[in-house]
Amino acid sequence: MSFLDALKEIFPASALRFDDASREEYGRDESDQGTHLPEVVAFASNAQEVAALLGLCQRERVPVTPCGARSGKSGGSLPVRGGVALSLERMNHILEVNVEDLTATVQPGVILGDLMKTVEAKGLFYPPDPNSWDWCTLGGNIAENAGGPRALKYGVTRDYVLGMEWVVPTGEVLRVGKRTIKGVAGYDLVGLFVGSEGTLGVATEITLQLLPLPRAVCTALMLFSELDGAARAVSAILAHGILPRTLELLDPVAIRALEGSGYHYPGGTQAALIFEVDGSAEEPLLAEVARAAAIAEEHGAREVQVAQGTAQREKIWEGRRQVSPSLRKLARHKLSEDIVVPRGKIPEMIAATHAMGARLGLTVATYGHAGDGNLHANVLYGGPEDLPRVQEAMATIMRHAIRLGGTITGEHGVGVAKRRFLQLEQSPELIDLQRRLQRFFDPAGIMNPGKIFPDAP
Amino acid sequence: MSFLDALKEIFPASALRFDDASREEYGRDESDQGTHLPEVVAFASNAQEVAALLGLCQRERVPVTPCGARSGKSGGSLPVRGGVALSLERMNHILEVNVEDLTATVQPGVILGDLMKTVEAKGLFYPPDPNSWDWCTLGGNIAENAGGPRALKYGVTRDYVLGMEWVVPTGEVLRVGKRTIKGVAGYDLVGLFVGSEGTLGVATEITLQLLPLPRAVCTALMLFSELDGAARAVSAILAHGILPRTLELLDPVAIRALEGSGYHYPGGTQAALIFEVDGSAEEPLLAEVARAAAIAEEHGAREVQVAQGTAQREKIWEGRRQVSPSLRKLARHKLSEDIVVPRGKIPEMIAATHAMGARLGLTVATYGHAGDGNLHANVLYGGPEDLPRVQEAMATIMRHAIRLGGTITGEHGVGVAKRRFLQLEQSPELIDLQRRLQRFFDPAGIMNPGKIFPDAP
Repeated sequence: MSFLDALKEIFPASALRFDDASREEYGRDESDQGTHLPEVVAFASNAQEVAALLGLCQRERVPVTPCGARSGKSGGSLPVRGGVALSLERMNHILEVNVEDLTATVQPGVILGDLMKTVEAKGLFYPPDPNSWDWCTLGGNIAENAGGPRALKYGVTRDYVLGMEWVVPTGEVLRVGKRTIKGVAGYDLVGLFVGSEGTLGVATEITLQLLPLPRAVCTALMLFSELDGAARAVSAILAHGILPRTLELLDPVAIRALEGSGYHYPGGTQAALIFEVDGSAEEPLLAEVARAAAIAEEHGAREVQVAQGTAQREKIWEGRRQVSPSLRKLARHKLSEDIVVPRGKIPEMIAATHAMGARLGLTVATYGHAGDGNLHANVLYGGPEDLPRVQEAMATIMRHAIRLGGTITGEHGVGVAKRRFLQLEQSPELIDLQRRLQRFFDPAGIMNPGKIFPDAP
Repeated sequence: MSFLDALKEIFPASALRFDDASREEYGRDESDQGTHLPEVVAFASNAQEVAALLGLCQRERVPVTPCGARSGKSGGSLPVRGGVALSLERMNHILEVNVEDLTATVQPGVILGDLMKTVEAKGLFYPPDPNSWDWCTLGGNIAENAGGPRALKYGVTRDYVLGMEWVVPTGEVLRVGKRTIKGVAGYDLVGLFVGSEGTLGVATEITLQLLPLPRAVCTALMLFSELDGAARAVSAILAHGILPRTLELLDPVAIRALEGSGYHYPGGTQAALIFEVDGSAEEPLLAEVARAAAIAEEHGAREVQVAQGTAQREKIWEGRRQVSPSLRKLARHKLSEDIVVPRGKIPEMIAATHAMGARLGLTVATYGHAGDGNLHANVLYGGPEDLPRVQEAMATIMRHAIRLGGTITGEHGVGVAKRRFLQLEQSPELIDLQRRLQRFFDPAGIMNPGKIFPDAP
C-alpha cells in the first residue's frame, strides 16, 4: 500500500488537504522564517488518528510537523523538511473544569483565551498569558512552554501541566503525569515533554492546574525620562521584596512606535514600566503600588499613573500589546529576540543592546518582561540588503546575554530561528546527549525534523 | 588494577570507610525498610571525584547509591545491591546568595535549614519545607523532589531548581538548565533529573530560585468535633478562592497521640486544621483568616485560635511536627503512607482509610497536607506478626487513592518501599519506557539499582 493510501485509511477525506492554498497556509507561522510547504495537511480528531499517523510515518520515514495556531515566533511549526503538517486545531474541546479539584482538562486545539474566559467565569485562574493568548492553542503552549508577562509571579506553562495523554514518535499513546498537584511516582516525563517543541511527540489531552482567581488587581504605569533609571527601578522594586504579577519595560524606541497609535505617552517619556499586583483585597495592593512608586521616583520616574478600574487598566495593556505591531510602522521588517538575563543584569543588557544598535547603525527596540529578565530586543530593518547586519546584531545580543549568565530564549523556543546559536549556551556534550535522547524516542527522526539542534557535524 | 586500587586513586584515604560501623550507618535511612550494607562508603569533595567514581563503576559494573542525610522515607538511599555508598555530605557549602538576581547556588550536601536561615537573613525565601528541614540535604531534596506543607501555595523542590551541575551515570559532568527564571533552550533535563531518585545521576551543584520573604504571616488552629467536617472544610476553603500557604489536617488518632506530649488539644477535639496565610501586610491576612474561620464554623469548627506572634505560631507547628514521633508511643511500629488524591476527594479518602482500618483491626492515623490532597496515612502495629495485615492495609490505601484519581506518592518517592505498587498507577508501556530511559542514561545499571521500577518480568 502506498503512503498516500495508508494515510487515507487513517483520516477521512475531509481531514486531508493537498491543495496549494492549504499547503501555503500551513507552511507559514509568525516567525519571519519563510514558507516551507508540507506535502499534505492532516487534521486529527482524536489520539488514535495521531498514533496511527506517527506509527505510519515512523515506518515510512516521512517527516511530521505538528501545529496548532501557528502563532509561534521561532518557526517550531514550520514543516522545513516537507512531509505531513499535522494540525490539532479540530481537537478543540474543553473536556472538564473541576472547581473542587482546581483542574481543567482540555484538548490540544483549545484556544488559550477560551480556556481563560471559561475558568474565570467559575472564579478560577489560569495564569500563563503569551501575547497571542486570544488565538494561540494550548497544544502549542505545551510544545513551546509558553510564558507571558504574568510569568514573573506565576511561572510558565510547565508549572501548570499536571498530566497529559501523549503520543510518542513511535505511535504509542501514553498517560503521563497525574491529576493531583503533588506526585513523584516515576520520572517526570511531563517535565521532559513540555517544551520539547514537537520533537518528542504530541499532546492529545492536557490536565492543567488552576488557581483561585485573585479578587483584586492594581495596575500602575510609571513614566521615566531616562531608560537607565527605569531599568534600575526594575531590580530595585524586586530587591525591596515586592513581587508584582507583571513588571514590563518599554524603551524609547517602543514608546516612539506608539506615537502613531492611539496610546501615546506624554512627550519626553523615554521609558515606561507597567507594574501590576494582585491579591485578595484592594487596599494592601494600593499600599504595594505606593511603595513601588516611591522606589520608581527615587530612580527618576517623572509620573506614576494608577489605573482606576478595569477600563483604564485595559488601556494600559492595550498600549503594551500594540508595541509589536506598531514597530512595523517604523521599519518594513523586524527580527524579534527573546533573551533572558539574571535580573540584576537588566540595565547592563539594555545598555549593551542600544550601544550595539548604534555601532551597526540599526534601530533596536528593547521591551518586554523585564521583571523576570526576559527582554524582547527587536531589530528593525528596511530590506534584504540589511540582513547581514541584522544577523550580526542578533548574534551579538545572544552572545552578550550568555556572557551575562543568561539564555538565548526565554519563551519563544529554539525552533529553526536559533538552532545555530544553541551552542553559544550549551556544551557539545549536552547537545550530543539531547540529540541521542531525541533518537531514543524517535529512531527514524520523523518528528519535527530540523528543529532545536544544529545539524550534526 | 583492582576496583579497590582504582577507588583509592580517586579518593584520599580519609574519604573512604570500610569499617562495619560506617557500613551499618550508611546502610540505614528513615524508611523502615531494613539495613542494607554497602561494601564501602565514599565521601566526595567535588564533581571530579563523583565523575571518576561513576565512570569506574560503569566500567566495572559496581552499584553506586548516592546519599545525603538519609532522611528519606522510601528507602531511596539504601544500598540494596551493596557496592559503593556515595555520600555528598562533605560538599556542604552555600556558594552564593544573589539578592539582586533572587538566586542561591549550593553544593548538594548543604542542609536545607541552613539555606533557609541564610536567605531569610537577607530578606529572601526558599519555600520547600519537608518535615526533616533541619537535617535533610538539598541534594536529597533534588533526588526525591521534596515537598512539605507550603507546597500548597509555593510548589515543590522542582519548582525552584533553575540549573545544576550534574554527573550522568557514565561519568560525564554536564551543566543543565539555566541561571535565569525563564529559559526554554533545549530539553528540560532539569525537569527529568529532579525526582529521579538517584537513578539518573548525581547533582554536584544546584542553582535555586528564591522569592522575596513575605513580610507578614498569620496562622490559625481550627478545632473540630468531627473529622468529616474538617475534611469538608478543606475543600470549601479552597473553593472559596482562599489560597493559604499551608492547610494541614490532623485526624482523631493523630490528636490522641499528642495527648502524651506538651501540645495537647482541648478535650473533645476530633480533628484539627492548621491554616496559614502569608503576604505583604498583616491586616488583609487577618481578614483572610476570618473568612476561612467562618467557612470552618459552617462545617462544624468548635473553636478557632489565631496565633498572636511568632511564639504562638511556633507552638502550633511544633505540635504538628510532634505527630509523627508521638504516634510511635501508641504502637511500637508504624508504616507511613504518602498518597495524594484530587482535593475534592479528601473526605472520601479519609473515610475509606478509617473504614479499612476498622475492617482489618488496625489503628490508622491520617494527617498531613490536606490542602493539596497529600495525606500521610500511618498504619500502627505491634510487631512482625501484624505485617501481613499492615501490607494489605498499605496496598488497599494505594489502590483506593488510584481509584479516586490520585497517586501512590506525593513527596516521599517510590524507592524500594513502593516499587511493587508503581504498576497500580502506571501502565506496563509507561513503566517499560522509563526502564529503557534509565538504561539509555545508565547502560550498566549501576546507579541506585533496585529502586523505583519493579524487577523486569
